[in-house]
Amino acid sequence: MTSPTRTATPTAVVGMVGGGQLARMTQQAAIALGIELHVLTPHDTDPAILAGAQFLSGQPDDLDALVALASITDVVTFDHEHVPNDHLKTLVEAGYAVHPTPAAKLLAQDKSVARRVLGAAGFAVPAYQDVAPGDAAAVSRFAEANGWPVVIKAPRGGYDGRGVYVVDRLAALDGQPGLGGLDRWLLEAHVPIVTELAVLVARRPSGQTVTYPVVETVQRDGICHELVMPARIDGALADRAAALGTAIAERIGATGMLAVELFVTAGGDLVVNELAARPHNSGHATIDASVTSQFENHLRAVLDWPLGATTGLAPVAATVNLLGPDHPVDLARTVPRALGDPTVHLHLYGKSLSPGRKIGHVTALSDDPDAALATARAAAASVLAS
Amino acid sequence: MTSPTRTATPTAVVGMVGGGQLARMTQQAAIALGIELHVLTPHDTDPAILAGAQFLSGQPDDLDALVALASITDVVTFDHEHVPNDHLKTLVEAGYAVHPTPAAKLLAQDKSVARRVLGAAGFAVPAYQDVAPGDAAAVSRFAEANGWPVVIKAPRGGYDGRGVYVVDRLAALDGQPGLGGLDRWLLEAHVPIVTELAVLVARRPSGQTVTYPVVETVQRDGICHELVMPARIDGALADRAAALGTAIAERIGATGMLAVELFVTAGGDLVVNELAARPHNSGHATIDASVTSQFENHLRAVLDWPLGATTGLAPVAATVNLLGPDHPVDLARTVPRALGDPTVHLHLYGKSLSPGRKIGHVTALSDDPDAALATARAAAASVLAS
Repeated sequence: MTSPTRTATPTAVVGMVGGGQLARMTQQAAIALGIELHVLTPHDTDPAILAGAQFLSGQPDDLDALVALASITDVVTFDHEHVPNDHLKTLVEAGYAVHPTPAAKLLAQDKSVARRVLGAAGFAVPAYQDVAPGDAAAVSRFAEANGWPVVIKAPRGGYDGRGVYVVDRLAALDGQPGLGGLDRWLLEAHVPIVTELAVLVARRPSGQTVTYPVVETVQRDGICHELVMPARIDGALADRAAALGTAIAERIGATGMLAVELFVTAGGDLVVNELAARPHNSGHATIDASVTSQFENHLRAVLDWPLGATTGLAPVAATVNLLGPDHPVDLARTVPRALGDPTVHLHLYGKSLSPGRKIGHVTALSDDPDAALATARAAAASVLAS
Repeated sequence: MTSPTRTATPTAVVGMVGGGQLARMTQQAAIALGIELHVLTPHDTDPAILAGAQFLSGQPDDLDALVALASITDVVTFDHEHVPNDHLKTLVEAGYAVHPTPAAKLLAQDKSVARRVLGAAGFAVPAYQDVAPGDAAAVSRFAEANGWPVVIKAPRGGYDGRGVYVVDRLAALDGQPGLGGLDRWLLEAHVPIVTELAVLVARRPSGQTVTYPVVETVQRDGICHELVMPARIDGALADRAAALGTAIAERIGATGMLAVELFVTAGGDLVVNELAARPHNSGHATIDASVTSQFENHLRAVLDWPLGATTGLAPVAATVNLLGPDHPVDLARTVPRALGDPTVHLHLYGKSLSPGRKIGHVTALSDDPDAALATARAAAASVLAS
């Protein structure tokens, strides 16, 4: 029925926990689809709010706030992983739609659970072991079996390289002050990596899945700096990676976007690194370079709407993240200069600059990956020039 | 300089008079560029406000409101033509940046002035004459010179076919009740039209222009129903049309987006119909089908930033407008169905439905214009199904 007021009834109302840049870009997709997006965050100037998302004030670990979000929306979803999984179960038990489901979300929230579940399902994961924090003897035994270095991870709460420690000998345990703060240690064998990939899969509750061309991610200090889509790998390996990502999405019953991060080893094997059960940093190029962006497909998927095509609009796209430099930047002056190349796609997140903070990204499309990367890198450097 | 607060200083602040769908789609482009868009409108639920634009309450013909908009923004621009031109001159005299300038805007506001200025500059326009309203003798003389039918237009304020009357004989003057309400009559020779085209040009104050592939527009009852970009015309004609549009933009000193509507006559001539000095309905396909949308290029142009590439992302794109049907429509039910074709791009404007009202559009990209049109038409029909 038509609404008697000037504004249309929204086509759907989606609740998102978190109002960061992923929520912001989801809001941008929501506008065109007539979807009203409500974000739960304590900050009324979060990137998504600045882009017009409705603001619901609250902490992501506050069950009352989560219930409040669920009660005014058709489905609850997420821009980050920092929501108590038990709260999500409570929402589901109360009859609210939550996508991804708590069980699928847990694999993105807890690296130890992900290793166990995916390993048991037969997917290739690095050797791993859960040990008590500070158990040097266990680390020593693990290294004997799997070699040095040993990777020690916080199973929960880490992101952008935080909560990950690479230890090359037992004595080095003492040199990593952050390790003492972890309440659990997940030990992992260090995988010699040739390339890092991300497989982005959108999956509906009713089962339809679509997969984007496999993305190559270039990390520095655990932070994703650059993306190339499709990855510069041979077609057979790309097919294997896409099939692996899709199989994991189906196996764990993912709903919404699932990003499956993979390592390509020196031997050409694919090993599962981490999962993200939401739109993901590795999919930013899909905004400008794909028929349907990951943000639109996330909305369509959590609403159980038909998914959009993931076909590329150019042979290759490259994205370079904008990380705040150490010097001050006057974006009002640098942005026009960065747009001097007419093929550049700029995406700013409405965040103030501080060193290392992701404030946006730049994407360029081309026939050639090196040309796309060169264009995006040059534009990113211009944006961040002093 | 970085801002001490969490939110970044915007890269620029743009004021737009009017908060309709063109302002909404401009707001969508503003988000990514870090531009803050303020819209002047009396309605706090206008499409642009629902998409997160800042709301400044006021009428577009209220000079105080226009000054208020100008005083908090870097540049004033428009989503419609209904602003007193003298008010714009007052803003410019007070030192505010206004783009398009009052002189260029006047050509889009007053069809009579446009005929005179463009005709004097040597551009092909239909035969025309300004006469006093109700001057039947003048109409008769004009018809003797140019033949029946005669087109009688309101020089100002008409849009979507309103204010245009086609009179096939003198007696028919009495059968057109709307004619009596016009305070001026612009008589025009009726041009036998083979095709209607629109040339979209972005132009910066400092002179740079870019032109989109020429768009073919299909009108019904004076309302644009469908677009095909690039137009289904031969390349030489397309080149002439693009050159004509660009020449007009330069001649009149257009700034921001200028849409030049052209008639292709049976003899293959190009005749200028109307101008719109703003983003235009005929450019909707540029959102999904061009490297840079007309909305982004409008912002870049009025800010005198470098313009983005107008290259197409597919061989052809077709857009079908969504006009409210006579029956009620439950968009929450029809939209997911319309998205069943994975290649469809849906854009809703957040407006309630009423018969004939533009509530959105659908764009499809293809290798073939008929296929693109078929996809977009089918999706539009699905959206509007009862």
